Amino acid sequence: MSAVVAEQGSTTPSTPEAVAGLRPGAFGNATALSCRECGHQVALGPFYACPECFGPLEVAYDFPAVTREQIAAGPANIWRYKALLPVPTDIEQSPNTEPGFTRLLKADNLARELGLTNLWVKDDSTNPTNSFKDRVVACALSAARELHAKVFACPSTGNLANAVAAAGARAGIKTVVFIPADLEKPKQVNSAVYTDSLVAVNGNYDDVNRLASEIAGEEEGWAFVNVNVRPFYAEGSKTLGYEIAEQLGWRLPDQVVIPVASGSQLTKVDKAFQELITLGLVEDKPYRIFGAQATGCSPVSAAFKDGHQVVRPVRPNTIAKSLAIGNPADGVYVLDICRRTGGAVEDVTDDEVREGILLLARTEGIFTETAGGTTTGVLKKLVETGQLDPTLDTVIINTGMGLKTLDAVADSVGPAATIDPSYAAFTATGLA
Amino acid sequence: MSAVVAEQGSTTPSTPEAVAGLRPGAFGNATALSCRECGHQVALGPFYACPECFGPLEVAYDFPAVTREQIAAGPANIWRYKALLPVPTDIEQSPNTEPGFTRLLKADNLARELGLTNLWVKDDSTNPTNSFKDRVVACALSAARELHAKVFACPSTGNLANAVAAAGARAGIKTVVFIPADLEKPKQVNSAVYTDSLVAVNGNYDDVNRLASEIAGEEEGWAFVNVNVRPFYAEGSKTLGYEIAEQLGWRLPDQVVIPVASGSQLTKVDKAFQELITLGLVEDKPYRIFGAQATGCSPVSAAFKDGHQVVRPVRPNTIAKSLAIGNPADGVYVLDICRRTGGAVEDVTDDEVREGILLLARTEGIFTETAGGTTTGVLKKLVETGQLDPTLDTVIINTGMGLKTLDAVADSVGPAATIDPSYAAFTATGLA
Ligand SMILES: Cc1ncc(COP(=O)(O)O)c(C=O)c1O
Ligand SMILES: Cc1ncc(COP(=O)(O)O)c(C=O)c1O
Ligand SMILES: [Zn+2]
Ligand SMILES: [Zn+2]
Repeated sequence: MSAVVAEQGSTTPSTPEAVAGLRPGAFGNATALSCRECGHQVALGPFYACPECFGPLEVAYDFPAVTREQIAAGPANIWRYKALLPVPTDIEQSPNTEPGFTRLLKADNLARELGLTNLWVKDDSTNPTNSFKDRVVACALSAARELHAKVFACPSTGNLANAVAAAGARAGIKTVVFIPADLEKPKQVNSAVYTDSLVAVNGNYDDVNRLASEIAGEEEGWAFVNVNVRPFYAEGSKTLGYEIAEQLGWRLPDQVVIPVASGSQLTKVDKAFQELITLGLVEDKPYRIFGAQATGCSPVSAAFKDGHQVVRPVRPNTIAKSLAIGNPADGVYVLDICRRTGGAVEDVTDDEVREGILLLARTEGIFTETAGGTTTGVLKKLVETGQLDPTLDTVIINTGMGLKTLDAVADSVGPAATIDPSYAAFTATGLA
Repeated sequence: MSAVVAEQGSTTPSTPEAVAGLRPGAFGNATALSCRECGHQVALGPFYACPECFGPLEVAYDFPAVTREQIAAGPANIWRYKALLPVPTDIEQSPNTEPGFTRLLKADNLARELGLTNLWVKDDSTNPTNSFKDRVVACALSAARELHAKVFACPSTGNLANAVAAAGARAGIKTVVFIPADLEKPKQVNSAVYTDSLVAVNGNYDDVNRLASEIAGEEEGWAFVNVNVRPFYAEGSKTLGYEIAEQLGWRLPDQVVIPVASGSQLTKVDKAFQELITLGLVEDKPYRIFGAQATGCSPVSAAFKDGHQVVRPVRPNTIAKSLAIGNPADGVYVLDICRRTGGAVEDVTDDEVREGILLLARTEGIFTETAGGTTTGVLKKLVETGQLDPTLDTVIINTGMGLKTLDAVADSVGPAATIDPSYAAFTATGLA
């Protein structure tokens, strides 16, 4: 697999060759990869940078008519939307983790606590490896398979490593996953159980990501899910947008709050809403998209507040490690979308992240990781600062789960009492 | 809430009074509680022991005609089967965790590894709190609500505590959960995030369970999910059986392997299959049910092998703490069912439990806890010893998830290498 790599210092990108040996319909209704900056199109393949301008490539489609009924007749996972994804029509037949169609919970307790009228939590913590990453990885796996990749790989802040290693094991393809060496222990073990090739890298995620780009440029046949097959990978996040709309009864919410690391997910939820409107599956209406970051790694939030058009890279220092991308690939698109829709990007401190985790647990019975603590904390701050309208229908996306970042709260909660097994000992606790 | 408690030493159980203030249809199509030993019936209420013979009470129904289409039109959670559960028809309107309709994965890699023809994993690790307990707790919560309980409680080996604390938080009912003090840290934290009233008890599960029965007998208005509302709770496990049949295309498997702690789940999967046959939703055919235990707590397996009709209590000593019930309430029914259907009960050592965890992870990308390691290990042993027919369609139930028992494998897996972020350092690992 050759890859178009926009390397630092090179001046003209190489032109991607159409990939030989693709079967018809390998990418479903996708027609090309299109540059998000200049619109230049290239053939579908393991390409991610525009040969004209180095801009990021995105999947373009020629959609057939798609009805709500067709979708409802599909399986209770992301493949119900396969007509809208760059995957073949027989995708369900290839071993995959079958992610998605997670709960959209009406969150009345949390709404009451924060003074909102109607709030929902889209809870992606119940995916196969407990984060939304299973969605994007399932699409990347399909691309890797169709492109005859021999290695399935990624640089990761943790969740992606879990998802890639699990999906690769199930698909029977060799996986190599790269993580920062200081990653939380649960996320390390949760990858190592699936793969023999977990590689810890001395450095932060941005270092790991650079290494991955280098390897992708050097090695033949490696599909790095978020590097050289990133356009296919990223499309998986659209399913979050589709599901939110379908589960609301085929309508768009007024406001959505989404955590931002590279920014890919946020941009794809917007893309999903736009596609649903174009396809006539939902009514066209305004909606506002909000981004959530941890203050210790908030380059997009900083740019939003400063009114900048570019995102200045930072060195991350936060407990929200899954969001700790200091140089976010899609940061400028997040700025665009949040500004265009009348939303905002906001950030909260690590203490507010911890409070967010406990708030969501105690009000709605959802144990989230630091990323979800960030999103919940940002929701609270957006309401308190008047940036989000509490009377409008609001959805927050919980993208991960609490057991993966146990240490964030392990010291602040615990048994109320430790007793001997007798009724007298129990009544003495005052809990009766 | 008064409770009929079969206390040690008492000779005649008190007769349950019909509960006042129940709304019509509070328990759906359920008609009574019926004694599993003598058939004596009592009114629906917080009762669990037969007033005639102390036998366990079970929910009896008068089912209407139920079609596959009605079920398929329901939500992607256990409430699609609400007509077959002791819950009101408006159950979806009451805040609950919306568990169930989890993945049934065709497990071709694991099948190949073990020499089976057709194998599926029913993966209940993706439930809201990552175990099958969310199913039973959702049914117990409905009963607690209809019975106007003021406290929602349980003794637990860990997973049940997580499920009760989460469901209670979401429903806005006070929870008190009791666990053995030496429980795994992740399961402790995963309860404490939801509730202020986690009580650690010096003793094993059987001690905790006795304490809970005592409290249930003393306190008014406490719904102990697996004690005084146990008949309602237990019905929730039937949904595992319904889903397996529906997801196989409305047919029963030939063989099922199910982990056994109290034995409740196993007996209810059998009950579910019987109901589906009676309702004409599946074809009547023979099936074999197998129970899985860890050798360090294998009272039912020991009785099976010794040909005993009773189960002699043991003192548990195994890493499979979620299965560590030394005095299983439904042990004799497990024996009955496994013998009647031509199945078996088998056990594996702690080392085999660990191997089972890694085997399932590496073949199918599913990270299970010690209970699932037990089930996978027992599947392997059943095939190797010829007790299970490898040519018949087989389903194993994965009931929990690996992050909750991280320590079981944390020392046996890890990064293959730790490197500096350079391509040279990577190629030196030999992983390229
Ligand atoms: C739990 C979680 N939430 C959110 C994100 C953000 O994703 P994106 O890079 O698409 O902005 C990540 C990325 O790693 C994540 O792990
Ligand atoms: C993960 C897991 N699997 C299986 C079981 C066994 O359930 P039962 O008591 O219904 O036999 C339990 C019980 O706690 C459990 O936590
Ligand atoms: Zn371009
Ligand atoms: Zn009786």
